[in-house]
Amino acid sequence: MTKHLQRDLEVLKKQLLTMGGMVEQATDLAISAVIDRRRDLAEQVLRGDDAIDLKELEVEDECLKMLALHQPVATDLRFIITVLKVNNDLERMGDLAKNIAERAAVLCEQPPIAGAQDFRRMAERVRNMVHECIDALVERDVDLARRVCLEDKEVDDENRRRFADLQQVMQSDPSTVERAVSLLSVSRHLERIADHATNVAEDVVFLVDGEVIRHLRLARASAP
Amino acid sequence: MTKHLQRDLEVLKKQLLTMGGMVEQATDLAISAVIDRRRDLAEQVLRGDDAIDLKELEVEDECLKMLALHQPVATDLRFIITVLKVNNDLERMGDLAKNIAERAAVLCEQPPIAGAQDFRRMAERVRNMVHECIDALVERDVDLARRVCLEDKEVDDENRRRFADLQQVMQSDPSTVERAVSLLSVSRHLERIADHATNVAEDVVFLVDGEVIRHLRLARASAP
Repeated sequence: MTKHLQRDLEVLKKQLLTMGGMVEQATDLAISAVIDRRRDLAEQVLRGDDAIDLKELEVEDECLKMLALHQPVATDLRFIITVLKVNNDLERMGDLAKNIAERAAVLCEQPPIAGAQDFRRMAERVRNMVHECIDALVERDVDLARRVCLEDKEVDDENRRRFADLQQVMQSDPSTVERAVSLLSVSRHLERIADHATNVAEDVVFLVDGEVIRHLRLARASAP
Repeated sequence: MTKHLQRDLEVLKKQLLTMGGMVEQATDLAISAVIDRRRDLAEQVLRGDDAIDLKELEVEDECLKMLALHQPVATDLRFIITVLKVNNDLERMGDLAKNIAERAAVLCEQPPIAGAQDFRRMAERVRNMVHECIDALVERDVDLARRVCLEDKEVDDENRRRFADLQQVMQSDPSTVERAVSLLSVSRHLERIADHATNVAEDVVFLVDGEVIRHLRLARASAP
């Protein structure tokens, strides 16, 4: 590998870590906005989404430049292609955090509803997954990537529990339907952030081990 | 462009058209399974998802080989990178069709619920978008791509109507909650298939015009 390519790869990794940090923070703020009924935090997430979108374009541009300039092969080529895919996943996670913030803003205008507090554990887990999947990529840490894939199953279970609980709430008090449907959306958006983190982790395993686990996960839980 | 590269690009386009056709059919069958309560169609979609996943790996493999072998630059490089992204979108659309089929299978076991018929128009529109976005890419047809982007707004509106209607149904008859929540999921999955088609269309515009419309669509409707 040329020194020039090596230097550019380091820059790319730093950009990814920055973008990962932005998505992690957006997820964190959006969920706090739901749980603690903080409209100000929801608005902070909504304002910050453009910065994540711009970062995506920056990373994509950098990848294209590196492909054209260095014409990398083998491992370096696969790494850059993986970064392109991960970049896409990160931007969508940012969108989902924005979707959660939008639900939070709506929920803040309505009376509190039982169930919002129950997202605390799920949110904590998803935030960790976002952090870990990017670390796994930058460090090429397959063990960490595999742990992220396992955590996804627990988030799926948690999502299922939220769906069951919220259906119960709606059945016993139909006046809660609108708010409960907003919380269903929050649950699903969180679960999808975890899915994207899992995609990233699977790409890391594929990058390092050349193993296509993403289509072999027979036990992968399906979305409700 | 070398003749060899040109030939490989043609093969790639054909693979994309095949994969687009598979996703279109899966979406079609999954929605018929919901509307006409056809468990057999739902099962056909579930069985077919592996083939879409395999096709994704095939296309990705082909793209990586072309990048390493031909070391394309400029337009050809951007085209191959776009195909990699579109390939990812198509695979996720296939997953969403599978998610719809899973909901259909559950709904078939339960008494009919008002509202399933209302998906017909939305489904028709989404299926067209899947078809058109791939055509737009293969033909580099920016006008068609822009039409797909406009259609997305109508699907978003339709999704919002489905949400409003289904909330009404649940409020007036709490015994419908479980089935209505399944239909909410169907609506959202359909809307997300349209979102992916829009991503593809935006990538086509970016590829041909170099214009980043995807982050400039201020009017883009947000998910409920």
